[in-house]
Amino acid sequence: QSGAASWYGSGSRTANGERFNPNGLTAAHRSLPFGTRVRVADARTGRSVVVRINDRGPFVRGRIIDLSRGSARALGMGGTTYVSLHVLD
Amino acid sequence: QSGAASWYGSGSRTANGERFNPNGLTAAHRSLPFGTRVRVADARTGRSVVVRINDRGPFVRGRIIDLSRGSARALGMGGTTYVSLHVLD
Repeated sequence: QSGAASWYGSGSRTANGERFNPNGLTAAHRSLPFGTRVRVADARTGRSVVVRINDRGPFVRGRIIDLSRGSARALGMGGTTYVSLHVLD
Repeated sequence: QSGAASWYGSGSRTANGERFNPNGLTAAHRSLPFGTRVRVADARTGRSVVVRINDRGPFVRGRIIDLSRGSARALGMGGTTYVSLHVLD
């Protein structure tokens, strides 16, 4: 299965009843059983992370998995990236 | 100059007095003159985008540029990424 991954960092309880830990290596998937471990590979960078499904979602068309903030960071998806700047004439 | 880039999508006016367009190819830098065009290259992916400096920032230590949402998208920094899933036994 391949498609878009998003991430989320807030919430109190996950769909399986755990306290949501934004820094954990977990994810929400629409159908995989809770507890399933999934390797998520970024098609662009080749980086991957193994996450545990403990929540349901994403409920947005075209997205296949919603990663916890910790999972997203492990994949290098954070809100920042490392860049170099080159001033043009 | 190299370092971390972040992005922002809200605001009314930029520091040079323009109406902020989140979808424009602009960025905030602490010192480069307004109007300077800069090529920003993602060190991880090699992707790059040319942006125009029209705002001041980022005011967070360790970050060197704050991209508009449009610039971040052009660099592939959006809130989503394309992944493949592989269920582990």
